[in-house]
Amino acid sequence: MDGTHVGIRVSAVLPAGGCGERLRAPKPKQFCSLLGRALFSHTLIAFDSVPWIEEVVVVVTAEHTNEARSILKSSRFTKVTLAQAGSSRHRSILSGLNLLSERASGPPDVVIIHDAVRPFVETETMMAVVNAAMECGAAGVVRPLVSTVVKVDGKGFLEDSLERSKYRASEMPQAFRFSIIHDAYLKCSEYELDFGTECLHVALKYAGARSRLLPGSQDLWKVTYKKDLHAAEGLMKDALAKDMCWLCQKDCLCGPAAELKSALGRRFALNEARNSTFMSEQTSVFNFICVQFADQKQGLESAALLKEVLEHKQWRHLPVVLIMVLFAHPSLLSGLHGAFPCDRSLALSAQEKGVLVYGLMINSSEGEAGQEAVSRAMGVVESLVESRDGRLVGQLFSS
Amino acid sequence: MDGTHVGIRVSAVLPAGGCGERLRAPKPKQFCSLLGRALFSHTLIAFDSVPWIEEVVVVVTAEHTNEARSILKSSRFTKVTLAQAGSSRHRSILSGLNLLSERASGPPDVVIIHDAVRPFVETETMMAVVNAAMECGAAGVVRPLVSTVVKVDGKGFLEDSLERSKYRASEMPQAFRFSIIHDAYLKCSEYELDFGTECLHVALKYAGARSRLLPGSQDLWKVTYKKDLHAAEGLMKDALAKDMCWLCQKDCLCGPAAELKSALGRRFALNEARNSTFMSEQTSVFNFICVQFADQKQGLESAALLKEVLEHKQWRHLPVVLIMVLFAHPSLLSGLHGAFPCDRSLALSAQEKGVLVYGLMINSSEGEAGQEAVSRAMGVVESLVESRDGRLVGQLFSS
Repeated sequence: MDGTHVGIRVSAVLPAGGCGERLRAPKPKQFCSLLGRALFSHTLIAFDSVPWIEEVVVVVTAEHTNEARSILKSSRFTKVTLAQAGSSRHRSILSGLNLLSERASGPPDVVIIHDAVRPFVETETMMAVVNAAMECGAAGVVRPLVSTVVKVDGKGFLEDSLERSKYRASEMPQAFRFSIIHDAYLKCSEYELDFGTECLHVALKYAGARSRLLPGSQDLWKVTYKKDLHAAEGLMKDALAKDMCWLCQKDCLCGPAAELKSALGRRFALNEARNSTFMSEQTSVFNFICVQFADQKQGLESAALLKEVLEHKQWRHLPVVLIMVLFAHPSLLSGLHGAFPCDRSLALSAQEKGVLVYGLMINSSEGEAGQEAVSRAMGVVESLVESRDGRLVGQLFSS
Repeated sequence: MDGTHVGIRVSAVLPAGGCGERLRAPKPKQFCSLLGRALFSHTLIAFDSVPWIEEVVVVVTAEHTNEARSILKSSRFTKVTLAQAGSSRHRSILSGLNLLSERASGPPDVVIIHDAVRPFVETETMMAVVNAAMECGAAGVVRPLVSTVVKVDGKGFLEDSLERSKYRASEMPQAFRFSIIHDAYLKCSEYELDFGTECLHVALKYAGARSRLLPGSQDLWKVTYKKDLHAAEGLMKDALAKDMCWLCQKDCLCGPAAELKSALGRRFALNEARNSTFMSEQTSVFNFICVQFADQKQGLESAALLKEVLEHKQWRHLPVVLIMVLFAHPSLLSGLHGAFPCDRSLALSAQEKGVLVYGLMINSSEGEAGQEAVSRAMGVVESLVESRDGRLVGQLFSS
């Protein structure tokens, strides 16, 4: 409850009942897959992990209830429940509020309302709107306008252009004292329930609550179009491509191996470990590079590492990259093909657990040839970590 | 001039002088690289290729003039000129208009104004605003609002929320009769020149021209934030990943090769050719797959193809993917490693010409093993075509 009012109870309602017609995709945007997970479940990860949120109600259509239920089950969320969507956004939110009002322990003090298709919401923002709602009854976040807003007359001509600096785009999350927003929705006209879009407006019009508007971060945008799916996946991948863990049994490095390590240190936040048990202890590193040398006993470390990976039933919510590197002299390289890093079936088993395994052989020659090999190898490592592409799992790259 | 008023002269002004502070990137967004090209030069490709546009003035800061000049030179545009940006968006547009007004042949009849950071503009849209500007003096495109627009009072509370359906976001391109917009800018107040953002507003206020507003496509958005670079790159890659050309000397296929071809036909718009000269004749296909068999004389076709690729000084504006496939029995596969598809230096030379070459070996066994190999190979092909990643050039994939 750090930072929020002590002792208040907070729940959340996430409407996810839209049909996403603007996306031109075969399924509603909240069910589109990003990094192997449905979009809305990325948003749920953000809410489910906040300790001071009691319950998260996600509102889906009857048609998608089974799909949503199976996604929730496989994600093992601890506080997410489902409610059934209505025929409009406001009706879906009301459905979620009704569910919370029927809880044996009574409704929460404050409810956060957030779109299931805004996956990048941060805990600080949730806390800020909850605090403002406790003080003022209602609160939301706003962003500067990106385009000028104009009014069009009945004949398709410009009637007026708004002064951009006086207006803001209203984004999510918003938060309300539960009684205020629930009462307001219960008093709402049928027309408003069918065609309205703005909860702040409902709170003002039907409960007299003037909302506090807080400036929001640039990450609060909503996935609306096909381009936004690319944007969301790109940002998620960026976030996962920042750290790297160097796993190597040799502590004295020279030549190309030392160069690779130093190049990795310039690109990633690099930490390191001597043994493979370290890997499973990491919870915020999503990239591992396991380095071996052709003069070592072959396969020992990589086999132990993969065995450990496979013993974890499910690695994490998000895919981890594991690159098995072998430094070898060019004369050995062609003979080693096929023997390293592991057979394909092992790589495919690891993939099922959420770990993407790739092999990379690097010319261990000293001098210019080795330097070029390391520079190409860095390109391969960056590509694999940034693209996180399951279709290339088990491939053996060389440089 | 098809579709536009016969005999009118049209030019364009593209302000590209912004500093892009919202992007948090080390350089202004218009100079950020997408698919190996600066963002603004993608927009210029769209304008330079329209036959009825006479001149395209791109307005850049003094600081970036040299960089812009070298990009223009390497792109070999035919009608793009540079003007120097002012201290604000409106001053930069005026600088471009002034340049056009000084042409010996006189100023154009109509000028299109477009942001350099909106790369997805289509010729149809340019034509629509030009026609509307000829009729009404001024015209722009609008899009529905994605977020509710709210007015914030002096104390940070909601004052009013606009009814979304009555307002639109004003986007680009816009078009004006040249005399109207140039006169309007010359009459503009200093305050307006420094702080205004909307050309339609300038035309209305200083020249009395009410603008015709046309509904625009969803592709007219502006690259503003980091997420938008991901979105733009994703959409560009999608557009390049639609077609595939099958190059193969064998016309009677069976087993895995026939299956691969049919799988490619389900994923891509597939056309085919028997000889490599076909490749250079294609101007709208960005993906080629060259298929050989281990029982054929090795390297013949791939060597001829790469030689031809390398003889072209510059392939195209955008990177082409060429996948060299070899079908071989598993017993031959390990022995062939390193010999196929070509040495790395040849792949790197091709990359300099804009062709990304990759190798792919496929198990040619009949039955289940072959089917699995083809299915994995399809994954690799899709990944390479969709990601178009220069860092993996010259790698040999296997399935």
